[in-house]
Amino acid sequence: MSGFVSIVGAGPGDPDLLTRKALRALQGADLVLHDALVPPAILALAPRARRFYVGKRAGRPSIAQETIERMLVAAARAGDRVVRLKAGDPFVFGRGGEEALALVRAGVPFEIVPGVSSALAAPALAGIPVTHRGLASGFAVVSGHDGAAWKPVVDALPPNALTLVVLMGLGSRAELARRLLERGWPPATPAAALLAASTPDAFTWVGALSELGGAALPEGAPGTLVVGRVAALARVIGGAAVHAAAATHRTDLYAEGA
Amino acid sequence: MSGFVSIVGAGPGDPDLLTRKALRALQGADLVLHDALVPPAILALAPRARRFYVGKRAGRPSIAQETIERMLVAAARAGDRVVRLKAGDPFVFGRGGEEALALVRAGVPFEIVPGVSSALAAPALAGIPVTHRGLASGFAVVSGHDGAAWKPVVDALPPNALTLVVLMGLGSRAELARRLLERGWPPATPAAALLAASTPDAFTWVGALSELGGAALPEGAPGTLVVGRVAALARVIGGAAVHAAAATHRTDLYAEGA
Repeated sequence: MSGFVSIVGAGPGDPDLLTRKALRALQGADLVLHDALVPPAILALAPRARRFYVGKRAGRPSIAQETIERMLVAAARAGDRVVRLKAGDPFVFGRGGEEALALVRAGVPFEIVPGVSSALAAPALAGIPVTHRGLASGFAVVSGHDGAAWKPVVDALPPNALTLVVLMGLGSRAELARRLLERGWPPATPAAALLAASTPDAFTWVGALSELGGAALPEGAPGTLVVGRVAALARVIGGAAVHAAAATHRTDLYAEGA
Repeated sequence: MSGFVSIVGAGPGDPDLLTRKALRALQGADLVLHDALVPPAILALAPRARRFYVGKRAGRPSIAQETIERMLVAAARAGDRVVRLKAGDPFVFGRGGEEALALVRAGVPFEIVPGVSSALAAPALAGIPVTHRGLASGFAVVSGHDGAAWKPVVDALPPNALTLVVLMGLGSRAELARRLLERGWPPATPAAALLAASTPDAFTWVGALSELGGAALPEGAPGTLVVGRVAALARVIGGAAVHAAAATHRTDLYAEGA
């Protein structure tokens, strides 16, 4: 019997933001290989499956990418229905493309199951539309994980040409803010830091770009940064929406439309 | 009794790519106000609801934005559970932010239910990861609907600094390609046009940026454009993945890594 691999996006964290297709893949899985940010409540949706944590975390020893790819191939060849479960969307900074290529090379059948990306959901749940008429006609997304990767992209963006979203950006916030200011982004440009979006621990900080580097934020939670005029909408929409991140911090220190 | 509005993303079209939260909102809805690209199979998931089409389509008379906002407020005040259903994610070019602001002004309780955005799902289902180590460290998303909105953003992006995704971009493909070439993007840069992603009619065109403007594509389907090195992966990953867009066109005419 031939196995099968589903490369699945788990969404931003809330099990209700899983897609129906992801849910079915989990329910039928024999094996789930998952990353760090996938919560237990989502793993519990795969009751039949053996589950392995294969995530990487800053500062900890982690399983090699080739090992993960070998595990996927070996399990599928042994006949397993395998779910490779990644936080957010599997093709956004998830190395999902590399794993798909490994499956192609091995001749293992697979599918991609897109998920709700934290790049959009974290802002949305805090009341920030990444595009908004008159404020932003587009958005750019980078990962703050690897400076060598994000710096050239960020340096290339003209100030306020579009909304900038930085996934896994909390640890880079000081350097990101400094770089944007050096590149001419106005200090009063609205900025937001969105922690643990879509979970009960969600926390939103909103302020000016000039304050982002020094913002005191809870430790340990995953976080998304947003820089651009739309971030100011968090204090209007985020404060009113039900289920939006509860704690909204400092919204009075910057001018709207900076 | 007080009503409630859920501003909901329907995902790219496949009902299986709806979130569990969106499904529940539809099942409990009294009224659904939906856009053009939401398919009947998704509307059928709201069997109790009155359903109104309030979409806009290029070249046709359409309902005014303020009318939609008035309908949302009036229905919620009458006690209805209202679902405002938008293709993809409601805060990506969906004017969801404007509708949320209208609800804030009216004091109507509401929530945002993020969805799977076509900006990521259309490429993923065609085998294109918008980011990929060594090929793209970030991506930018614009809408091709309004030239005055996308042109300044596209003009500001240095060639190949990141993957460019254009939603509703089919009608602008000739002008987009011409502009990018003028701005110094190499003619051999891989490009893709993704039509009716996640539906049985899905069609993928892959070629070089220099060919995009003249590409012969089916009429009438919604479409997403991708420009950047990652588009070349469609011919490797897209050709192998199960459920990927069936018809992949012309993949032999450009050099990889342009």
